[in-house]
Amino acid sequence: MVIVMRPDSSPEDVKRVEQKLRARGLQVFLSNGNGKTVLGVAGDTKSVDVRDYQLLPGVSEVVRISVPFKLASRAFQPESTVIRVKNAVIGGGEVALMAGPCTVESESQTMDAAEKVAAAGAKVLRGGAFKPRSSPYSFQGLGEEGLRILKEAGDRHGLAVISEVMDVSQISMMLPYVDIFQVGARNMQNFTLLRELGRTRTPVLVKRGLAATIEEWLMSAEYVMSGGNHEVMLCERGIRTFETYTRNTLDISAIPVVHKLSHLPVIVDPSHAIGIRAKVPPLAMAAVAAGADGLLIEVHPDPERALCDGAQSLFPEQFAELVSKLRIIAPAIGRTIPPARATP
Amino acid sequence: MVIVMRPDSSPEDVKRVEQKLRARGLQVFLSNGNGKTVLGVAGDTKSVDVRDYQLLPGVSEVVRISVPFKLASRAFQPESTVIRVKNAVIGGGEVALMAGPCTVESESQTMDAAEKVAAAGAKVLRGGAFKPRSSPYSFQGLGEEGLRILKEAGDRHGLAVISEVMDVSQISMMLPYVDIFQVGARNMQNFTLLRELGRTRTPVLVKRGLAATIEEWLMSAEYVMSGGNHEVMLCERGIRTFETYTRNTLDISAIPVVHKLSHLPVIVDPSHAIGIRAKVPPLAMAAVAAGADGLLIEVHPDPERALCDGAQSLFPEQFAELVSKLRIIAPAIGRTIPPARATP
Amino acid sequence: MVIVMRPDSSPEDVKRVEQKLRARGLQVFLSNGNGKTVLGVAGDTKSVDVRDYQLLPGVSEVVRISVPFKLASRAFQPESTVIRVKNAVIGGGEVALMAGPCTVESESQTMDAAEKVAAAGAKVLRGGAFKPRSSPYSFQGLGEEGLRILKEAGDRHGLAVISEVMDVSQISMMLPYVDIFQVGARNMQNFTLLRELGRTRTPVLVKRGLAATIEEWLMSAEYVMSGGNHEVMLCERGIRTFETYTRNTLDISAIPVVHKLSHLPVIVDPSHAIGIRAKVPPLAMAAVAAGADGLLIEVHPDPERALCDGAQSLFPEQFAELVSKLRIIAPAIGRTIPPARATP
Amino acid sequence: MVIVMRPDSSPEDVKRVEQKLRARGLQVFLSNGNGKTVLGVAGDTKSVDVRDYQLLPGVSEVVRISVPFKLASRAFQPESTVIRVKNAVIGGGEVALMAGPCTVESESQTMDAAEKVAAAGAKVLRGGAFKPRSSPYSFQGLGEEGLRILKEAGDRHGLAVISEVMDVSQISMMLPYVDIFQVGARNMQNFTLLRELGRTRTPVLVKRGLAATIEEWLMSAEYVMSGGNHEVMLCERGIRTFETYTRNTLDISAIPVVHKLSHLPVIVDPSHAIGIRAKVPPLAMAAVAAGADGLLIEVHPDPERALCDGAQSLFPEQFAELVSKLRIIAPAIGRTIPPARATP
Repeated sequence: MVIVMRPDSSPEDVKRVEQKLRARGLQVFLSNGNGKTVLGVAGDTKSVDVRDYQLLPGVSEVVRISVPFKLASRAFQPESTVIRVKNAVIGGGEVALMAGPCTVESESQTMDAAEKVAAAGAKVLRGGAFKPRSSPYSFQGLGEEGLRILKEAGDRHGLAVISEVMDVSQISMMLPYVDIFQVGARNMQNFTLLRELGRTRTPVLVKRGLAATIEEWLMSAEYVMSGGNHEVMLCERGIRTFETYTRNTLDISAIPVVHKLSHLPVIVDPSHAIGIRAKVPPLAMAAVAAGADGLLIEVHPDPERALCDGAQSLFPEQFAELVSKLRIIAPAIGRTIPPARATP
Repeated sequence: MVIVMRPDSSPEDVKRVEQKLRARGLQVFLSNGNGKTVLGVAGDTKSVDVRDYQLLPGVSEVVRISVPFKLASRAFQPESTVIRVKNAVIGGGEVALMAGPCTVESESQTMDAAEKVAAAGAKVLRGGAFKPRSSPYSFQGLGEEGLRILKEAGDRHGLAVISEVMDVSQISMMLPYVDIFQVGARNMQNFTLLRELGRTRTPVLVKRGLAATIEEWLMSAEYVMSGGNHEVMLCERGIRTFETYTRNTLDISAIPVVHKLSHLPVIVDPSHAIGIRAKVPPLAMAAVAAGADGLLIEVHPDPERALCDGAQSLFPEQFAELVSKLRIIAPAIGRTIPPARATP
Repeated sequence: MVIVMRPDSSPEDVKRVEQKLRARGLQVFLSNGNGKTVLGVAGDTKSVDVRDYQLLPGVSEVVRISVPFKLASRAFQPESTVIRVKNAVIGGGEVALMAGPCTVESESQTMDAAEKVAAAGAKVLRGGAFKPRSSPYSFQGLGEEGLRILKEAGDRHGLAVISEVMDVSQISMMLPYVDIFQVGARNMQNFTLLRELGRTRTPVLVKRGLAATIEEWLMSAEYVMSGGNHEVMLCERGIRTFETYTRNTLDISAIPVVHKLSHLPVIVDPSHAIGIRAKVPPLAMAAVAAGADGLLIEVHPDPERALCDGAQSLFPEQFAELVSKLRIIAPAIGRTIPPARATP
Repeated sequence: MVIVMRPDSSPEDVKRVEQKLRARGLQVFLSNGNGKTVLGVAGDTKSVDVRDYQLLPGVSEVVRISVPFKLASRAFQPESTVIRVKNAVIGGGEVALMAGPCTVESESQTMDAAEKVAAAGAKVLRGGAFKPRSSPYSFQGLGEEGLRILKEAGDRHGLAVISEVMDVSQISMMLPYVDIFQVGARNMQNFTLLRELGRTRTPVLVKRGLAATIEEWLMSAEYVMSGGNHEVMLCERGIRTFETYTRNTLDISAIPVVHKLSHLPVIVDPSHAIGIRAKVPPLAMAAVAAGADGLLIEVHPDPERALCDGAQSLFPEQFAELVSKLRIIAPAIGRTIPPARATP
């Protein structure tokens, strides 16, 4: 932290700032030059509220020069984190493909989806059992029965399983079923939930909140990591802007930005970002070209009869075609896409 | 809901749309004119995903003409909701003043704050016992002990008590202490929490999420109300925009907009919106002039030593001076401000 | 400007930064402490691109500590600017009321509007002769004939006249007709236009662009002032956000923020911000309560037949009623509202 | 346009709406069903202000079902527009590469840049002669001398030339020098300028305004086209959002959205979107993968000494390396990238 005093500040002003800093156990070093006084501050400034110093008499500017997250930062861990769940490797040379229906509706629907996404090259099966719906009158998911179906489908097709956890009370029940916990965009700052997930040893995917800055998003990862669970991945799924033609605006630049700031893998969810099936493939291709470590895509065996988000779900053949195009793109960024499997 | 077909749509296209609607139990009435076909749709369209119809062949536009909330709408209940807690009346002729420290830090600090805000005219005491901090390394609140202190201070000075609930697991413990549950901006779409609060009979204040549209905010109120708890108030606390000089952008127009759409009271929190003490009074005055039913303001007996958000907390004398200015403004909108009490 | 080096930066890194700064004629003072090197920079840093230094090896952070505008800043001129045009005083103890139709449509419409807004207490008549329409197929204004009508109506009722200038080529033609040039939101960064207006000695009102930060807005004022024309006022008219219920989001906090940063008067245009007549009065009252130096409001003698923006234009009686409410509010901020005049 | 009446509207309410529509020369067809009345409206509704009807008694909702642009829409012209300038084909099977320095600084700098971008595969040379700088104290460009240098460099290396026009007064002077006029983001709604460019027969590239919706952007293209100049291309260069880590947020989804709505080519400018050199290549690759018809990229022979935007300019070798990666990606979307030329 650096505190710059105004040219007209008095020695008492400087002393007051210095004392307030030292009272917090921080180290202060002063510099003077050209009529300006600058205080450099060292020590644990992470929880300092900079506004407390901006308001002091004689202060011109207070600047935080270190990022507020630590465990998630690339400065702390220079090498990229690689997370392994079942056959999937996330953050390595292979682009991790996670696909499946928005919601688990039935055994046959889920089994069908699992078979097809596995055949196309996916390594992780997604599917919701608890659904955060903005209307209390919408379908809310199958609950534990949905998780059981999901795990069975994953096991049969060699897929790891990811599903959303909405509340602390669901964690222990979900543990036997899921390989990755998904924290939804609306819960990105549900700190109680993040803290509890940090006590598990199951990988966690943290979706970016609709209006979350990249720094806040990394702070949410930090919450999980500060509990001891370091297997965290981040998922960009579109931010809210003034544009209304698209559901959200996919922040494609978040991929290189996060890769610079953090060692954690970045997954992109084009389905929720754009909200319309026909535009999911261009965004998925863009995400891989920009360096995403993985994709999270909604695929449904019969999107027109889906109970949830059918409009943004790909048909299985569309998904397979998309993956074949990704195989052309991936080498441009030194990556590979898993091969398609022969359907039995 | 109205579905407009393209000029080049075929009779089969129209029939397909019609059948999909009827299959959901909706009523359809067709109109033709000038080469255009329009389908009017009646019935429970609240949980329909309009995108499912936009994708059908021959469809030009799908328009939802009813709002997705019901219990919260002014169409459903034309008269404004008035909520009474202890001596406070929220949504009536008096502007409800809610004030107190960001966080309960100690008995003396809270008692001191309570005495002073009560003297100035406040009817509700605010204070956090569980704090949603964006950093896991920040002070997280006193918990139940904080609530006990808050209630004692409220009781001594005739103030109702409002405090934030962060998780379902805290509800039953908090019930004996609080008169109003506060749902924070970051939890506005924690649907599990909203649903459980709907099962209590304690009034709930729902803060608007940083990037929540007015419609989503009202849907969150609807979640609480759909559980049977109709004593809900809404709190505007600033939205996230591109502007960085202010912490958030107070959406002052939300006041008249919500008053038109809904019968629920609207409270404004200028402290979190602007984040800097000196600019809290102008925003508080603007909010009352624009018709707010109440204010939620941070006041601390010693802001410079506050453990949390001291930079945006008013000194008690500033709060008293602000209230005296509000007494000048309130008659312009046909409202009153409670009188100051003689300090004993 | 302050440049903070990384802990692992080498002496060569520091030297490289220092040389690049000195090569621009800037003064540099170095400080070391606790293993960190900080370079303070003095001189004319206004046109420095901070990114040029952020990219240098060993640099951790570059911070601009002075604002990029000078003539517009309160540091440069502590006392508030007061602008006098005809009977209007803008930036003084009186709240300046500017009102009139969106567009000059005819002599009788403009004369009628002028008479009524003058009677209610307005001192400035607004009216467009050149209209920036987002569609090339919309009515584009009466041009010079409109200005002639506007001036005649202003003269007859003792009102100064404000009208929008859209292009450099219109300036000299408009000079004899207008007392204040209005620069529209879409032209806020038409730097060619701003520069030319700086060469006139007619006051200029600069509307804030839809997505302009407060700093960029003040830089546009600086453009006009750097040409020698110091009579500039700023007009907040709503910014673009994600919310769609309102046309724009009135940034009410811009009023106290600009008053702190600059000595220039701040006018608020609630009509364009909200876009719907019924919500103009609450926002106008809020603006005055928050300290606005004036209001710019659309009033039309027959809004339902207006050629432009009729939906957001007040009826003359609504305007008169609004002004009478403002008379209640103004004393709360130590201001006055001009008295209503007896209609002849 | 469709107007939906409230269930409680009276026959007089319906008649009033109908008369107002017919008075504008619009055709109206009525439909009744299930207690609801819907008015379908046909004719030229482009310049109708929907708010004028929303305010009428008994009206529930007014919905515009046609887009406000016509010449720019894919409904009007189904086949994609292909623009040919010198050796460049924009909107066809080849991805058009436009590159060069931010500003023309000198003959040698421009000649050097032209040689290197041509060698890598670019077909269009970019370079500013008039610079819209947010500070009046920054370098403002070489003017006509810059254009002369640019044209000479383009001619020598077989490159078409694109440069920004800031004001109507510059058009005729620029005509002999440029092959494509560039309209900057800040001038996207300078309607006077757009209209005059519509009278030329030189292709125009319209950059998207920082806060412009896709619809407004297309309306600006419509302005140019309505003057008779149909050779318009659109350029996405990032929009303004709440995120501050990046200069702007590149709206990658605008590419497929515009391709659906319009037949005009879409160019992407990753340099201005992200503002930092190292992140330009990932965004450029993403743009091509998402289907962009071309790229506009800042390349400078010596970025560290650039007078403008050096921080976001690529080194010539970086540009050549980027183009070689694009050659891997392009086939995935059925496109080609021009081959590198042997340096003489």
